[in-house]
Amino acid sequence: MSGWHEECGVFGVIGVPKAAELAYFGLYALQHRGQEGAGIVAFENGRHRVKRGGGLVSEVFDADDLAALGGSLAVGHNRYSTTGSCRPENQQPLVSHCLGGVIALAHNGNLVNAWELRQDLEREGSIFQTSMDTEVIVHLIARSHRETLVERAQEALRSVRGAFSLVLSDGRRLIAARDPDGFRPLCIGRIGEGFLVASESCALDILNASYVREIEAGEMVVIEAGRMRSIPLDGKRDAHHCIFEFIYFSRPDSTIFGHPVDPVRRRLGHVLADASPAEADIVISVPDSSNSAALGFSERSGIPFEMGLIRNHYVGRTFIQPIQHLRDLRVRVKFNAVRSVLEGKRVVVVDDSIVRGTTMRKLVKMIRNAGASKVILRISSPPILFPCFYGIDTPTRGELIASTHTVEEIRKYLDVDGLAYLTIEKLKEAAPAALGYCTACFDGVYPIPFSHTPSKEILENGGDWGQSPITKCEEPWSPL
Amino acid sequence: MSGWHEECGVFGVIGVPKAAELAYFGLYALQHRGQEGAGIVAFENGRHRVKRGGGLVSEVFDADDLAALGGSLAVGHNRYSTTGSCRPENQQPLVSHCLGGVIALAHNGNLVNAWELRQDLEREGSIFQTSMDTEVIVHLIARSHRETLVERAQEALRSVRGAFSLVLSDGRRLIAARDPDGFRPLCIGRIGEGFLVASESCALDILNASYVREIEAGEMVVIEAGRMRSIPLDGKRDAHHCIFEFIYFSRPDSTIFGHPVDPVRRRLGHVLADASPAEADIVISVPDSSNSAALGFSERSGIPFEMGLIRNHYVGRTFIQPIQHLRDLRVRVKFNAVRSVLEGKRVVVVDDSIVRGTTMRKLVKMIRNAGASKVILRISSPPILFPCFYGIDTPTRGELIASTHTVEEIRKYLDVDGLAYLTIEKLKEAAPAALGYCTACFDGVYPIPFSHTPSKEILENGGDWGQSPITKCEEPWSPL
Amino acid sequence: MSGWHEECGVFGVIGVPKAAELAYFGLYALQHRGQEGAGIVAFENGRHRVKRGGGLVSEVFDADDLAALGGSLAVGHNRYSTTGSCRPENQQPLVSHCLGGVIALAHNGNLVNAWELRQDLEREGSIFQTSMDTEVIVHLIARSHRETLVERAQEALRSVRGAFSLVLSDGRRLIAARDPDGFRPLCIGRIGEGFLVASESCALDILNASYVREIEAGEMVVIEAGRMRSIPLDGKRDAHHCIFEFIYFSRPDSTIFGHPVDPVRRRLGHVLADASPAEADIVISVPDSSNSAALGFSERSGIPFEMGLIRNHYVGRTFIQPIQHLRDLRVRVKFNAVRSVLEGKRVVVVDDSIVRGTTMRKLVKMIRNAGASKVILRISSPPILFPCFYGIDTPTRGELIASTHTVEEIRKYLDVDGLAYLTIEKLKEAAPAALGYCTACFDGVYPIPFSHTPSKEILENGGDWGQSPITKCEEPWSPL
Amino acid sequence: MSGWHEECGVFGVIGVPKAAELAYFGLYALQHRGQEGAGIVAFENGRHRVKRGGGLVSEVFDADDLAALGGSLAVGHNRYSTTGSCRPENQQPLVSHCLGGVIALAHNGNLVNAWELRQDLEREGSIFQTSMDTEVIVHLIARSHRETLVERAQEALRSVRGAFSLVLSDGRRLIAARDPDGFRPLCIGRIGEGFLVASESCALDILNASYVREIEAGEMVVIEAGRMRSIPLDGKRDAHHCIFEFIYFSRPDSTIFGHPVDPVRRRLGHVLADASPAEADIVISVPDSSNSAALGFSERSGIPFEMGLIRNHYVGRTFIQPIQHLRDLRVRVKFNAVRSVLEGKRVVVVDDSIVRGTTMRKLVKMIRNAGASKVILRISSPPILFPCFYGIDTPTRGELIASTHTVEEIRKYLDVDGLAYLTIEKLKEAAPAALGYCTACFDGVYPIPFSHTPSKEILENGGDWGQSPITKCEEPWSPL
Repeated sequence: MSGWHEECGVFGVIGVPKAAELAYFGLYALQHRGQEGAGIVAFENGRHRVKRGGGLVSEVFDADDLAALGGSLAVGHNRYSTTGSCRPENQQPLVSHCLGGVIALAHNGNLVNAWELRQDLEREGSIFQTSMDTEVIVHLIARSHRETLVERAQEALRSVRGAFSLVLSDGRRLIAARDPDGFRPLCIGRIGEGFLVASESCALDILNASYVREIEAGEMVVIEAGRMRSIPLDGKRDAHHCIFEFIYFSRPDSTIFGHPVDPVRRRLGHVLADASPAEADIVISVPDSSNSAALGFSERSGIPFEMGLIRNHYVGRTFIQPIQHLRDLRVRVKFNAVRSVLEGKRVVVVDDSIVRGTTMRKLVKMIRNAGASKVILRISSPPILFPCFYGIDTPTRGELIASTHTVEEIRKYLDVDGLAYLTIEKLKEAAPAALGYCTACFDGVYPIPFSHTPSKEILENGGDWGQSPITKCEEPWSPL
Repeated sequence: MSGWHEECGVFGVIGVPKAAELAYFGLYALQHRGQEGAGIVAFENGRHRVKRGGGLVSEVFDADDLAALGGSLAVGHNRYSTTGSCRPENQQPLVSHCLGGVIALAHNGNLVNAWELRQDLEREGSIFQTSMDTEVIVHLIARSHRETLVERAQEALRSVRGAFSLVLSDGRRLIAARDPDGFRPLCIGRIGEGFLVASESCALDILNASYVREIEAGEMVVIEAGRMRSIPLDGKRDAHHCIFEFIYFSRPDSTIFGHPVDPVRRRLGHVLADASPAEADIVISVPDSSNSAALGFSERSGIPFEMGLIRNHYVGRTFIQPIQHLRDLRVRVKFNAVRSVLEGKRVVVVDDSIVRGTTMRKLVKMIRNAGASKVILRISSPPILFPCFYGIDTPTRGELIASTHTVEEIRKYLDVDGLAYLTIEKLKEAAPAALGYCTACFDGVYPIPFSHTPSKEILENGGDWGQSPITKCEEPWSPL
Repeated sequence: MSGWHEECGVFGVIGVPKAAELAYFGLYALQHRGQEGAGIVAFENGRHRVKRGGGLVSEVFDADDLAALGGSLAVGHNRYSTTGSCRPENQQPLVSHCLGGVIALAHNGNLVNAWELRQDLEREGSIFQTSMDTEVIVHLIARSHRETLVERAQEALRSVRGAFSLVLSDGRRLIAARDPDGFRPLCIGRIGEGFLVASESCALDILNASYVREIEAGEMVVIEAGRMRSIPLDGKRDAHHCIFEFIYFSRPDSTIFGHPVDPVRRRLGHVLADASPAEADIVISVPDSSNSAALGFSERSGIPFEMGLIRNHYVGRTFIQPIQHLRDLRVRVKFNAVRSVLEGKRVVVVDDSIVRGTTMRKLVKMIRNAGASKVILRISSPPILFPCFYGIDTPTRGELIASTHTVEEIRKYLDVDGLAYLTIEKLKEAAPAALGYCTACFDGVYPIPFSHTPSKEILENGGDWGQSPITKCEEPWSPL
Repeated sequence: MSGWHEECGVFGVIGVPKAAELAYFGLYALQHRGQEGAGIVAFENGRHRVKRGGGLVSEVFDADDLAALGGSLAVGHNRYSTTGSCRPENQQPLVSHCLGGVIALAHNGNLVNAWELRQDLEREGSIFQTSMDTEVIVHLIARSHRETLVERAQEALRSVRGAFSLVLSDGRRLIAARDPDGFRPLCIGRIGEGFLVASESCALDILNASYVREIEAGEMVVIEAGRMRSIPLDGKRDAHHCIFEFIYFSRPDSTIFGHPVDPVRRRLGHVLADASPAEADIVISVPDSSNSAALGFSERSGIPFEMGLIRNHYVGRTFIQPIQHLRDLRVRVKFNAVRSVLEGKRVVVVDDSIVRGTTMRKLVKMIRNAGASKVILRISSPPILFPCFYGIDTPTRGELIASTHTVEEIRKYLDVDGLAYLTIEKLKEAAPAALGYCTACFDGVYPIPFSHTPSKEILENGGDWGQSPITKCEEPWSPL
């Protein structure tokens, strides 16, 4: 339903006129992956132009910007980041002058050894402009002793560990790569003579482009002069696709990891209905994120699907904190319960996940106030027990309600008449079989070891420790 | 689905602290009734404060504004108007200094005799600041020879003809009124010791306020010093509630004209399924406006309801016109088709109405491209044949596709395998029985006669002729 | 030097293409008469277009605005007003729809009977949109029973009392008028086939237009169809030109009241040097307002003129209040003393006037810190003892330092070695002889009686009582 | 008068609370050195905060910014740059993460070997974020193998050649340095327990701080823990102070290179009057830049100084190009001639320099139109024949009127009755004797050899070739 946030969407296009315009609409379709900022770097005839800013894609760019950007090649990025950051320079795509040219890089993910690499690089005299882990990659490319950009990128990406689905370009070629675990999605499409790369296929659909395939885990793709070639990044590893992309992050109309999302969510609903049936009159979703799962639950259980919650289309990004007697307003601004649907009914609410539980608690109250006689909650994923360190902005463990409460305690807190989650086994049963998954947020099994053992404190408090010393504004000067 | 636009939402609150804040959230919930601008006038201790601006409610006001507005009484307004208007002064609530004080007025509707009244008033030396029909009302109040504001308002509202659901205040009392036909909705709520007035009940829900009742057609309500009294505006007339409020304009979670909207839309789906059944595998809606009707159709027909179209939550208000080979992008920016849902399926699309048909044509193409084997269209209202002159921004008759084409021609244009509308009889059958309706847009029977016979040309071209000479920017100077 | 502020500059143009552009540059040249806001109304082929906003002329308008405004006739206004006003609607030119057309009005001055007229008009049912006295004039025009606009304007302007130099237009003709006392300046110019009207001739110079003549006190000028005619407003009265326009308000390169300003200021310097000679090494001005008077003083006294104070060209309109140990910064932001000029010198500082004395005190300290051995102050006007009620924003009497302190006390407060003012007689001797003057701020002789005797309190506290009950935001509702 | 532009002002402060506030006012006073942008980096307790933006200092920062910046140490920068640059990243102070901390750097000047150094650095894997020559310095510091920051900075500054007056800090110490030629000024001041560094002493005066001394050519000053130490940068070289700083760039109330500016300009006037006397009635300046020289000319020649041109205080930074018949408006927007001063007079106009001559030509026309019977022009500097490559934005040689025309031809073009420049000898005679000067713009003797011989074409076309390949947006990708 919310509470977890993707950190980015990435987009690349090559071989078309007005590439910035295509990037704009691609980012538009990927807006759900990051609403805090957006940027496009467009290349044309050896020149590059940049526009990056805070806010939604539609707020950052106007028609004049797109006309000025132009381009026959473009790299774009949607950013999620914590508000009020003191670092305006933390914008993507990252633009770096090096090797006698310019490299633009857009990255979705999180590198777990960025901190050590950065320390090494600074020790050797490298200068960083941002606090983003992403910047390490460009430095590794610039410092590589290999000949070509492709070889240099290959070498650099072999040095970093963690999650990365990225697009980079020097204005001549577009390079796209996924880490060997394949945490985040990244797919290839075609439009006319041109190629597209995008976090999700919905960014191809908006452009009426055709879907080609997912980039493989551990694969680097180089597109240049109208041709595409595939380069392996690394010795074979088992892939660990983020299973939460299927549960919540990606759009249901997207194809990710080679599989359409909606049927997976539908199957989650089926499995959930089988495992945790409910005696009820209607099934409702929390629109729109759990629509597919709720339809699946309804389908399998035979309980009619209804729209008991209405979502306000005009919710702005800023929220004005109201006076005290208007409490719970934050949720009422977003949703309203439909009395005529809910009154006197036993209601199954199907949601995709619970992070902190605070919003769900208010929704339940709203549903009860609208006359529901019984509220049964079904969650189409297992309890979230552990933070993510591979590109998702996670609350600390203490804030994850399932990490500190039993299911029965959560049921009481949410004031529902019944509560059931999926098990990890059932979850994997519903997800596409051939893929390997990362389920660390459910079971704490982190596929990538951390380079310096994270202290217990950090493990308790969450936070992306691969990156954390850098993201803080406080940097004590190292003794010289 | 779209194409028709409400012209306003109105809101009033009295007897609470920080009234502007309540108005803000009330307007937030009424945002669908007008996205071009918003305004709040707050009164406190004889002072008034105003903030009006262009854009969404969340864009017009920030926390500082609300704190500065304060107020124990507030009047608010959401405005729909054509873009690029040359009249920045056309903002509501209207604020007028008269009778030794200030009157704030928010109006939803359209007066058909505004032009004549204005000519009379100007001849007598009145000065107008805007081109809005609404301003006539304040002048009539100011010019009235009656003693009290209430009597003056009563007299003024007896002089105007047309559609009005309005809220006005002088800082002491809140006056709310609906025209004798009752075209537009307006309801009363309570919050603590205070009273609320709003176009739809969803504006009460967001504040957790209680719904009291609809203001009657031809009723004026005066709220002062914690008490409410009802004053009849006029000799009895038959009411003519806008039936389109049930079909499309109001939110499904609202109660209007005393009746919840969702069950009416559900019944429209039932009736439609009975009258025009379809052989199909799935029923889909055009989210979110036809969700209720589509669920009703599914329910009655037994064909499963599916979500075959995904609506983008981040559609901005401005649209950047793309380059030519991206045509049909405007609809893809808003919607995407879900291939896994639609592929190989015979699909019934239920929509609430067709105005011009251009968007539906693109949606049908998108649904077919996603693999639907058959597309059958069912519309939960009759063909729109005539323009509205009671507060809705209507295209000219020539632009109304049903006005110039047969159903079969429309079917071909939209490229659907089947097309059926509701009849007016079936529509009235599904709508709440006790109410009288205006169905002029379907049958051309206009309940209020026009003061000067509209020329055939105007009737053909549409446009709100009650108001039109005023809304133009070109005003030749009258010979003096 | 400052402390007093004009309330407006007005500008009109007729008979040229792109009239708004000319108005823009005219207002640019009149910027010193009002920096808080600006507005232009342009008429063309019976249409009017308006742009008004807060800030400097160069901030309010951009090239797109001017292109959109266009016009063959335009009325413009520079506004001075107190910051943070709660009335955004108080913008000029005032635009009123009346008499079947539109009237634009720009006014410089202050009407002393506006409050009574407004009460009468509201009692008769007139509606006001602003709290400006100016609005009364349009209502009187609209309510007049005369036939033509010219006759109506004549009648209206005969009813108001006080200071007005105004420009109004209905899109066909440009009407300009000065009150019978002729408090504020207003002149006529020609450019090609067109006519211009402006507060000062510097607005003609910037357009390379030719100066024709000052509009007479009590004269109304009507320009239409390429011809200009003169209409007397009233029975003959003695004129009372604001003598402070010569001392400080107008630009030295302007011609006002038919006389160039610079020679008058030069003569003030001569007379001052004769009446109050000083033993000193150099004469300096407070740039740029007292440059002319200081040059005159130097010329007559034979003491060399030097530039001992440098004025910062980049002073913004907003001032950030610094931390405490940076006190006196406000004056240092604007001026710096030149040590190499002042060190060891006996310095005569010539300034045009002293209002509160606070800035001068800091300047004196700055001059002393730069090494001046002696600082002698000469003021090219008499002590300001009384507030102005004819269009100038005046502090209360209590704030006028000369109203509460003797010259010797002021000398001590300013910490100067000598201080002398001009006498009223000497002032009149230096000013052009044929003109009558208002010297109320020096002698309390107000040429226009107040319609309701101002209370002693108001007289003490200053404030423009002709207008004051209206300009307040607090308006208790009158009993109905 | 104009036509040449400084490229920067720099400011540093250490050892005071609210350092950003002091930097703000320091930059305010240095605004004439760069109006295109401004930035402040403030350090406090190991944290740094940055605000940079386009426009005037008063436009870039508001009170909230200054409060947020805080700091006990701050580095500030005023930027001049060509409009419409495609590189928003070219902002100063430059902020770099390196050596485990952050370095902020503000630079005034131009490095002539930046291009080669950058090529070397990129070849070794350094990444650049901007196209500014300044960035090279930080890379050299980061790459140095010396131990401490001070040693590293010393080494880096020994590697670069050209003009630099810079301030840098790591949050602990403030380092300020001038190149061995000492092209641009940089001085030290004290405020309470703190130290200040500024391009000109006027930035100390605004803060009421005391002037300590100029930083020597080739000196690096390190301020840390309340103490200041001086470190020589290089083996002794002859200094070459930019003589144009005395002629035009610096403010007359500043002390630069250890000498107050106003007396130098005064002496230029004396020498000019001696060398090129004129028969005339009055001497006027082009306010305010040539005021001092004109006063000097008047003083020596005995011809009275008058203010014949009035400068508009409200000239905005943007200029709206008017319609054709308003030609020459650009100069009339800035200046107006005072007829009463000029009419019938033989006028000596003293200006500091002529770059292109276009503005002066319009001023002369304006002065003649105001009635001057004769216009004699005296320039207080020699003809400008060569472009500057040490930090000034110069037009190409072809645009320098004196480079392509004889004095007599210039006289005819400007339409003056007489024209004389200073000789280089007289100029040096008037300037402080002990200093060495760069007079390359007058005599083509460039004190620093260029690392790669500039082609004849570049020499003809001007442009800063030390930097030019970098400042262009077009960067062809180097063959890999």
